[in-house]
Amino acid sequence: MNHSKTEINNIQIAYIGGGSRGWAWGLMSDLALENKLSGTVKLYDIDYRAASKNAEIGNRLSKREDVSGKWNYEAVETIEDALIGSDFVIISILPGTFTEMESDVHLPEEYGIFQPVGDTVGPGGMIRALRTIPIYAGFAEKIRDFAPDAWVINYTNPMTLCTRTLYEVFPEIKAIGCCHEVFGTQKLLASMLEEVKWISNVNRRDIKVNVLGINHFTWIDQASYQGIDLFPLYREFVDRNYEEGFEGSEKNHWMNNHFASAQRVKFDLFRKFGLIAAAGDRHLAEFMPNNWYLKDLQTIQNWKFSLTDVSWRIQNQQKLAAQSDRLVNGKESFEINPTGEEGIDMIKALLGLEELVTNVNMPNHGQMGNIPTNSVVETNAIFGRDSIKPVLAGELPPEINNLVMRHVLNQETTLQAALQQDNEMAFRAFANDPLVNLPPHQAKELFNKMLENTKAYLPV
Amino acid sequence: MNHSKTEINNIQIAYIGGGSRGWAWGLMSDLALENKLSGTVKLYDIDYRAASKNAEIGNRLSKREDVSGKWNYEAVETIEDALIGSDFVIISILPGTFTEMESDVHLPEEYGIFQPVGDTVGPGGMIRALRTIPIYAGFAEKIRDFAPDAWVINYTNPMTLCTRTLYEVFPEIKAIGCCHEVFGTQKLLASMLEEVKWISNVNRRDIKVNVLGINHFTWIDQASYQGIDLFPLYREFVDRNYEEGFEGSEKNHWMNNHFASAQRVKFDLFRKFGLIAAAGDRHLAEFMPNNWYLKDLQTIQNWKFSLTDVSWRIQNQQKLAAQSDRLVNGKESFEINPTGEEGIDMIKALLGLEELVTNVNMPNHGQMGNIPTNSVVETNAIFGRDSIKPVLAGELPPEINNLVMRHVLNQETTLQAALQQDNEMAFRAFANDPLVNLPPHQAKELFNKMLENTKAYLPV
Amino acid sequence: MNHSKTEINNIQIAYIGGGSRGWAWGLMSDLALENKLSGTVKLYDIDYRAASKNAEIGNRLSKREDVSGKWNYEAVETIEDALIGSDFVIISILPGTFTEMESDVHLPEEYGIFQPVGDTVGPGGMIRALRTIPIYAGFAEKIRDFAPDAWVINYTNPMTLCTRTLYEVFPEIKAIGCCHEVFGTQKLLASMLEEVKWISNVNRRDIKVNVLGINHFTWIDQASYQGIDLFPLYREFVDRNYEEGFEGSEKNHWMNNHFASAQRVKFDLFRKFGLIAAAGDRHLAEFMPNNWYLKDLQTIQNWKFSLTDVSWRIQNQQKLAAQSDRLVNGKESFEINPTGEEGIDMIKALLGLEELVTNVNMPNHGQMGNIPTNSVVETNAIFGRDSIKPVLAGELPPEINNLVMRHVLNQETTLQAALQQDNEMAFRAFANDPLVNLPPHQAKELFNKMLENTKAYLPV
Amino acid sequence: MNHSKTEINNIQIAYIGGGSRGWAWGLMSDLALENKLSGTVKLYDIDYRAASKNAEIGNRLSKREDVSGKWNYEAVETIEDALIGSDFVIISILPGTFTEMESDVHLPEEYGIFQPVGDTVGPGGMIRALRTIPIYAGFAEKIRDFAPDAWVINYTNPMTLCTRTLYEVFPEIKAIGCCHEVFGTQKLLASMLEEVKWISNVNRRDIKVNVLGINHFTWIDQASYQGIDLFPLYREFVDRNYEEGFEGSEKNHWMNNHFASAQRVKFDLFRKFGLIAAAGDRHLAEFMPNNWYLKDLQTIQNWKFSLTDVSWRIQNQQKLAAQSDRLVNGKESFEINPTGEEGIDMIKALLGLEELVTNVNMPNHGQMGNIPTNSVVETNAIFGRDSIKPVLAGELPPEINNLVMRHVLNQETTLQAALQQDNEMAFRAFANDPLVNLPPHQAKELFNKMLENTKAYLPV
Ligand SMILES: [Mg+2]
Ligand SMILES: [Mg+2]
Ligand SMILES: [Mg+2]
Ligand SMILES: [Mg+2]
Repeated sequence: MNHSKTEINNIQIAYIGGGSRGWAWGLMSDLALENKLSGTVKLYDIDYRAASKNAEIGNRLSKREDVSGKWNYEAVETIEDALIGSDFVIISILPGTFTEMESDVHLPEEYGIFQPVGDTVGPGGMIRALRTIPIYAGFAEKIRDFAPDAWVINYTNPMTLCTRTLYEVFPEIKAIGCCHEVFGTQKLLASMLEEVKWISNVNRRDIKVNVLGINHFTWIDQASYQGIDLFPLYREFVDRNYEEGFEGSEKNHWMNNHFASAQRVKFDLFRKFGLIAAAGDRHLAEFMPNNWYLKDLQTIQNWKFSLTDVSWRIQNQQKLAAQSDRLVNGKESFEINPTGEEGIDMIKALLGLEELVTNVNMPNHGQMGNIPTNSVVETNAIFGRDSIKPVLAGELPPEINNLVMRHVLNQETTLQAALQQDNEMAFRAFANDPLVNLPPHQAKELFNKMLENTKAYLPV
Repeated sequence: MNHSKTEINNIQIAYIGGGSRGWAWGLMSDLALENKLSGTVKLYDIDYRAASKNAEIGNRLSKREDVSGKWNYEAVETIEDALIGSDFVIISILPGTFTEMESDVHLPEEYGIFQPVGDTVGPGGMIRALRTIPIYAGFAEKIRDFAPDAWVINYTNPMTLCTRTLYEVFPEIKAIGCCHEVFGTQKLLASMLEEVKWISNVNRRDIKVNVLGINHFTWIDQASYQGIDLFPLYREFVDRNYEEGFEGSEKNHWMNNHFASAQRVKFDLFRKFGLIAAAGDRHLAEFMPNNWYLKDLQTIQNWKFSLTDVSWRIQNQQKLAAQSDRLVNGKESFEINPTGEEGIDMIKALLGLEELVTNVNMPNHGQMGNIPTNSVVETNAIFGRDSIKPVLAGELPPEINNLVMRHVLNQETTLQAALQQDNEMAFRAFANDPLVNLPPHQAKELFNKMLENTKAYLPV
Repeated sequence: MNHSKTEINNIQIAYIGGGSRGWAWGLMSDLALENKLSGTVKLYDIDYRAASKNAEIGNRLSKREDVSGKWNYEAVETIEDALIGSDFVIISILPGTFTEMESDVHLPEEYGIFQPVGDTVGPGGMIRALRTIPIYAGFAEKIRDFAPDAWVINYTNPMTLCTRTLYEVFPEIKAIGCCHEVFGTQKLLASMLEEVKWISNVNRRDIKVNVLGINHFTWIDQASYQGIDLFPLYREFVDRNYEEGFEGSEKNHWMNNHFASAQRVKFDLFRKFGLIAAAGDRHLAEFMPNNWYLKDLQTIQNWKFSLTDVSWRIQNQQKLAAQSDRLVNGKESFEINPTGEEGIDMIKALLGLEELVTNVNMPNHGQMGNIPTNSVVETNAIFGRDSIKPVLAGELPPEINNLVMRHVLNQETTLQAALQQDNEMAFRAFANDPLVNLPPHQAKELFNKMLENTKAYLPV
Repeated sequence: MNHSKTEINNIQIAYIGGGSRGWAWGLMSDLALENKLSGTVKLYDIDYRAASKNAEIGNRLSKREDVSGKWNYEAVETIEDALIGSDFVIISILPGTFTEMESDVHLPEEYGIFQPVGDTVGPGGMIRALRTIPIYAGFAEKIRDFAPDAWVINYTNPMTLCTRTLYEVFPEIKAIGCCHEVFGTQKLLASMLEEVKWISNVNRRDIKVNVLGINHFTWIDQASYQGIDLFPLYREFVDRNYEEGFEGSEKNHWMNNHFASAQRVKFDLFRKFGLIAAAGDRHLAEFMPNNWYLKDLQTIQNWKFSLTDVSWRIQNQQKLAAQSDRLVNGKESFEINPTGEEGIDMIKALLGLEELVTNVNMPNHGQMGNIPTNSVVETNAIFGRDSIKPVLAGELPPEINNLVMRHVLNQETTLQAALQQDNEMAFRAFANDPLVNLPPHQAKELFNKMLENTKAYLPV
């Protein structure tokens, strides 16, 4: 890297999963908007053609006059090529294909288990983890061997276990997991300020929150805006909107496909537990016992959130593939929009250009009380030059911690089971998931079927 | 106390719950058989008449020629009278009456929740805890004020929370909780030695085990007899008896009314988790998810254990009351039988007469890994003069620890809820119990009914 | 308090030690320069006349046109009057008088022990602690009873033990200890940038450092300026200046009376241990074994730092008393100068007006590894609305941690000794201080003399 | 191994350092007296001839009619030959030769540092550690590769660092360190019972003690004999003997060459700290600051303990070599005496033949509070079949813990320095030892000379 006082050039980013349409295009868009950074992005993907197309799209973009962040995009054929010399590694992959995801999300429905997302916990999240962990173990080894000093930013789910695996295999890795769910809750609080206090256009970054929990099941126990305590306001806001729900804005952003969630789960959790759950309702519902918010389709409809059918994902993917071709051959012009993700801000902070405080997934070294050491937790952290230091977030009230711990311990078991390829151990975690509310023999039957459907991606 | 080289006289024991028939008579029997100790037992009970009758029974016994341990029994009207000057405090009470227990055990059946015992976890155990914790908080204060140096031995359930409450209110207390469930498992291993190895008449004390877990949900991860590793033998034993179960002996002991348990739950847990669960099947089943062993009456019958109807307890109580009268007026002679409990051995060890290693419930100060500090756990400990030091028992495999932790955290929440009289908090623990497999509104309805039924014993 | 969007009025500050000249005048100066805050400062001092004079000086100042921060100053006769209603409590006292300090600093010289400051560790720091801890225990009780929700900012030495005592007596207190020594090291690094890199006018706040240790014995293991790693530069800087030392600027600031320190101790510690010690040399030397930097006067002269004679403090005090009178009667005009302290920034951040990251002394809840829980450590923390959250600073290399731990443990012993008024225990800490390099009987003799000299301030 | 009900045959013991005269002959003696065990001892030594002679001596012994424990002794040429197939590994070596020990013990005298033993801490202990740690790292690798399931019993000093190194290099090792110093203190307490209470012939094993600390600097905070608290008696005993000291028995045992220690250091530590220090005075003095008990020869004489001159060790070694030849050729008959060591009892317990509670050196997993995890501590442990479980010993009072921690942290630094071959780091530990009361440049000079004298045994 070359440092000048205010710009840094020749940065090298390795993008693993660089053939993706959503995340890769988002990165290009954000990089295009940032004039203090430049360098090369090496795109690696098991689908090399997709990575090549993205390189083409990216390089076209860099040539445009309206683009201030000029980057060189290069598709590479091996992960080593991407990693060698990289300052940052971004990982955003689809573990397996939509065929596996179809089984993860929808097969459990035959057993009465509905999953709005199915990529984090629940039967879908667990089976997804079993095929993702070996892939991430491989990434960790490659990073250890070819880019041990690079900062690694992960966007793939299951976020906690992806990040956890990286550290388990290469403990000295400098890796974090990033997710925008907390940002969504900050935006909800900004909307609340408008509704309750007629303060409009509040930037979500000015909503200061203390975050603690695990990814997609994070909680906020302190929130303020310019000296105003937001908790009393939120209580009023929840009371006002509890029955009908609150229809937030930004609902149709491609990266954040929440469909119609009305925040009712979030409001109900606030009433029952007193803290602000800081993820979308579709995620939150999956962490609670099966018969709270996901008992049956009627219950789900009452709570006003949607299930994301994998068939939609497949259709969307086809649409994006067509769009990719149009972007490559210039029939469509790349639309530059800030994603709202913080990846670029993090990179700037890690380069020493600015200080950043935001929430991030990292191994617990004390930032969260009453959670085992090394389990990956989500709290605030301060980013500075080559340094991310978590903030002491405190601890959750015992009843919430209890719910969180059940998943933390299940995830630790899942990690070991995947690394040791011990299906019996994996099943013990599976059977203990709050959504798997089945007698053992039925749970085993479901587990075996799901495992069979993902076996192409399991080590032999 | 007066020490001579081999005997200790003038020991004073305070017996709280001293009007009981089962436990008090058991103590009298064990004291009568022990010739190295003598002194006074002060019997305190909210039913003073029952305590008085027991004093009469005990003093009659001490006069008999065939009795070597001569003790003076005295009923007292206040707990202070019992505590002042005591060297040891034994607590064995019924929290509330059988009316409350009837609700604890049987009301949940209306919601499809069956409980074989209902005094430890599950809806029954939790509601029982809510009324017991305030009573024990009171005991702790009295002990702090009137017998701070005495050793306190608790036999009441819920064992973990009774012991936990004593320490929470008076952290310097010298208290332990004692339970014979592990002894039963040692006896099972002795029976196994006979069946598998034709070694007969093995004393359960010669079965050396490493114990770790929480009361009634303890586990054994090492077991040996004279240099023989018992784990391979147990695996063979389980294989041989898995389908039909193993009918143990001692099944009709009055203090240990297991009725017909065939150890099938224990065998199944061994197959699924690899360790020996060290409590009776009726207890173990209550700690697991509802639809494992307690889904419905047919499931229960298949697993071959019984539910203890409270009506049986009521009848049995009436029989014992009649027997008490006969013992008082001499129409029946007190039958001296060793109970198999270790209270007297513990007292001897604490007086310095012998060294004793046995399992005991105490706050976790590191004896068990991956369990929060101060939560009450059950492990081995060494007893010496005025000293009980837990042994480092290690940690459970993550999947079992996971199951244990759910209860540990629920119990901590229950403790705080009871001490702060916070019913909302108590409900959050209740709804999280593995047996309470209900939608929140039904769980709340059940909770409210059960709470109503125990309200006579809750602080106002 | 009244919040508007950008200003906060009616803030109430209790100033304990409000009769002081240095610190109180500094606060007035800083408040006068800050236009977003206003309210009342209640000045409490055991010397009520001195507090009254300061009130007069402060109110005069508020009337001046060139002053943008308008505050009302009020001398009060009791600490309760100061505390009731306060949002913030500032404590800056002299524990005892200069007579006691004379003994603390100079009596050990008879035993060959030289102390440049004598207020933190060493025989002087320890005896000072013994009389300060009971005073602070009293403050903690008053704050608990009259201002439990106020934020408490302590400036008094021994900083660690003052802050530690507040938390020991009132664990829920919201208190921090503040010291400018790290700022001095940031300024040294800014000077270094000028010397080594010709980058001038760097603001010390832009020197980003990771701080860890205990007050006056803190260390920096990461330092950067706008993406530049300062460690290689510092190594070069030390090599260049090791023999002659580096004469820093700002040496004559009244609040920061370092006299002529040439940073040679700091440079030597860097060479020996590899990290940047982040306090003045006069403080640092006191934490190391006696025969490293303080063996005799010649050694001290070689290392180029001064001993602060208490007679100088007495003279200075007299000068300030005279100046106080001139300020009260208007013969001299109050000179407004920013002190460089961060108290006002902290208050603004705690009110939610801005986010602040700075170093602070707080009980260890995990922010520093390998140091006992609850011992007061100095690390960075994030200040936000009603919230100070320490940053996970990591841990020191074992050899440095070793040196730090000796003082941490000594301080814990001193705390308990002072609270329990156990002079034998206090002596055990005293004899273990690295400067007390004496046979036990001589150490005891010195201890007893010093204790005698401070007895007017010890509880009876 | 072949188990019968009461005997175990075909045990294989690897003896590393099997050419030694003292320890090897002691083992032979103890094995000869034990009729429940038999098997083979493989003697490995870098001096193969010495091992061969010992094999000859051992096999001669086994043939004698008066010997009930019949063992086969075999000298082997490689450590692998000794380890393969072994059930137990005993390590007792001299790291380096007496030439190195001469430098360790006596060179520091030129700098005014006197060391009675010089093998544990102090300059001698540290330099000895630097050459011993690499040897033990090698042992650990061999054990990992050739006897990973064997139990390893170490007798070599520095005990703590030898044991610590084994675990650092092979964390799954089953190793303990054994030392008889605590036994000596139990014997002192037995003698006390005779003097104070006229109770004679008390077996030291019946003196029950709670042990906590690090090897040669262990402490007893509870001691009893058959229900009698020994602390009040010890206080009386110390008062009676403080000035003159107490001349213990057993002073001329070859294995335990204490010469004339009068327990005055132990008595003084009791007066100053309130606990019973549980090692010989010669060891204890080395852990305290230089000017407490070792200031000069006069001070040492006043405290009534001896310095062990290495020249005596050399003479003694020559005598033993001559005796070895006589034993080999039958000119002298081997005298069977129980050593008082517990190695054989430990082996019997680990084989499941008996339960044993005794003190042992193991990594801290919570058995001792306020000491870092994994540092080797000495506490009681329960030995059972293939199992050693430490007892929760509690924690030392802060002032004593402080003294212990200084050595614990120094030892951790020494370990890392030795493994990383980082002499600068090693020096930082050296300069921080309480006996090294020197200015840094003198400390460095001494360190360099001592290191030079041991360089033949350092890795290159
Ligand atoms: Mg996400
Ligand atoms: Mg029980
Ligand atoms: Mg300071
Ligand atoms: Mg020894």
